[in-house]
Amino acid sequence: MTKYPEWIEEKDGSLWLTEYERENLKISYRLKEIIFSESSPFQHVMIVDTFDFGRALVLDGIVQTTALDGHIYNEMITHVPLCLHPNPKKVLIIGGGDCGAAREAAKYPHIERIDMVEIDELVVKACKAHLPEISGNLSDPRVHFIFDDGLRFVKDRRNEYDVVIVDSSDPIGPAEHLFERGFYEDLHRVLKDDGIMVCQSQSPIFHQNVLRNTASILKELFAFSKTYIATVPTYPGGLWSFTAGSKTYPLDRFPDRITPVETKYFNEEILKSCFSLPTFMKKFLPNG
Amino acid sequence: MTKYPEWIEEKDGSLWLTEYERENLKISYRLKEIIFSESSPFQHVMIVDTFDFGRALVLDGIVQTTALDGHIYNEMITHVPLCLHPNPKKVLIIGGGDCGAAREAAKYPHIERIDMVEIDELVVKACKAHLPEISGNLSDPRVHFIFDDGLRFVKDRRNEYDVVIVDSSDPIGPAEHLFERGFYEDLHRVLKDDGIMVCQSQSPIFHQNVLRNTASILKELFAFSKTYIATVPTYPGGLWSFTAGSKTYPLDRFPDRITPVETKYFNEEILKSCFSLPTFMKKFLPNG
Repeated sequence: MTKYPEWIEEKDGSLWLTEYERENLKISYRLKEIIFSESSPFQHVMIVDTFDFGRALVLDGIVQTTALDGHIYNEMITHVPLCLHPNPKKVLIIGGGDCGAAREAAKYPHIERIDMVEIDELVVKACKAHLPEISGNLSDPRVHFIFDDGLRFVKDRRNEYDVVIVDSSDPIGPAEHLFERGFYEDLHRVLKDDGIMVCQSQSPIFHQNVLRNTASILKELFAFSKTYIATVPTYPGGLWSFTAGSKTYPLDRFPDRITPVETKYFNEEILKSCFSLPTFMKKFLPNG
Repeated sequence: MTKYPEWIEEKDGSLWLTEYERENLKISYRLKEIIFSESSPFQHVMIVDTFDFGRALVLDGIVQTTALDGHIYNEMITHVPLCLHPNPKKVLIIGGGDCGAAREAAKYPHIERIDMVEIDELVVKACKAHLPEISGNLSDPRVHFIFDDGLRFVKDRRNEYDVVIVDSSDPIGPAEHLFERGFYEDLHRVLKDDGIMVCQSQSPIFHQNVLRNTASILKELFAFSKTYIATVPTYPGGLWSFTAGSKTYPLDRFPDRITPVETKYFNEEILKSCFSLPTFMKKFLPNG
């Protein structure tokens, strides 16, 4: 009998993946099959095929992205900063092992270089091989894969990138330090004088402290900072937040016309409306 | 030993509610206690206290609304049409047994009468007694409870309401016929010549046929029709749709100033942004 990780259960002849992260809410996905399952020095990496969401990347038993809805997260974390910056040429992605953010960024012909710094090479390998719906089998020569700790990578650089995208997993495990103030100070320094950064800032419903903390730090460090939202079905609570910081360009002045790229979720109306926040968020956010 | 309905399970000393509706995705809520559990002639009605979402209304084993996020749905189905109509005085709510939509509508002093037609009196009784976070212990004299089939209620009325809100459950069980064309024709007739109606039109991800069908019918029947969205964490996929039809007033012209009411999610920015749809919705919607 195959030995499965603890979050996989065989029941009534079917395989089920149950996220164990939350104590009081369990989400279980029925699986067609487990396509890839290996441990890296950082975490357990799985690609599974689910019935309702298609293929999914699972890290340490938590669903990170799926073929059905991964584009929402990846489009929103990428196209918003890339459209608000008038002329982005050099982009840094921290994390983003599923390659979805790099794939979205590579849709703009005017971008010259995309550095993707991911700590876990196994995630990239698995997604390139088994999750083409998200990674797009990325082979664009402008994309440079750097398998390193994002924290270390930004330490001794300055004034180098137009846009920085922090596509981290939850603030437990390998991504923990990507939510700390020192890291954002480093990001501020690696950005050019008119640079824009964005990070995923967790659920406005279930992780209000993480979001408030992130928004406070960015408000202090950057001339302009703003939180925006999207619905990501496979994340707890569905409602998800991203927080942007900008050195020069106001984040509420939208370009007259955005470069048209092929997307499934993002468009000009979404760009303009994603910064409209529900009242409960305005109340607890320093930049609301 | 207590006999629980099939969707309740005792495990490791805790009670769990598992929604059985979807074959390939199970969402389980850990319960503090079951507060109310009775069968009506129409369905099984439960009020439970969950760990993560507070108290919740559960019909036939499906979570309908929770103390944590119920206001999002109720505010969005109510305040959007009531703000787009310049002078609503008489409001009809079909369904809405949790009383949340009636409670939101009653926040406007200029509304003179709210008729709430709910087929199942037991739902209203249970929510008034045990779910005050949603129902608000509604005792406003302008709210008239009519325990009747919404389909029958609208059959022989005409030209009576400024705004009609269809707050139905899923199109299986008692609410099935509330998604059919004949019902919308009746609604068109019960509205005054400048009336506006809105209905919940299910998940844009998992129920695209229901949404497309609803939007098509409203587009045919009304001079103006539009779909809008909100994130409702406890509904499958998180992203939820509402579709509005209007006889006279365009749905994309917003009032200069909305009547200020106390809300947790809805505000003027949300009113203006909720009609901005993701690209994949524009592609399959006749009114996108």
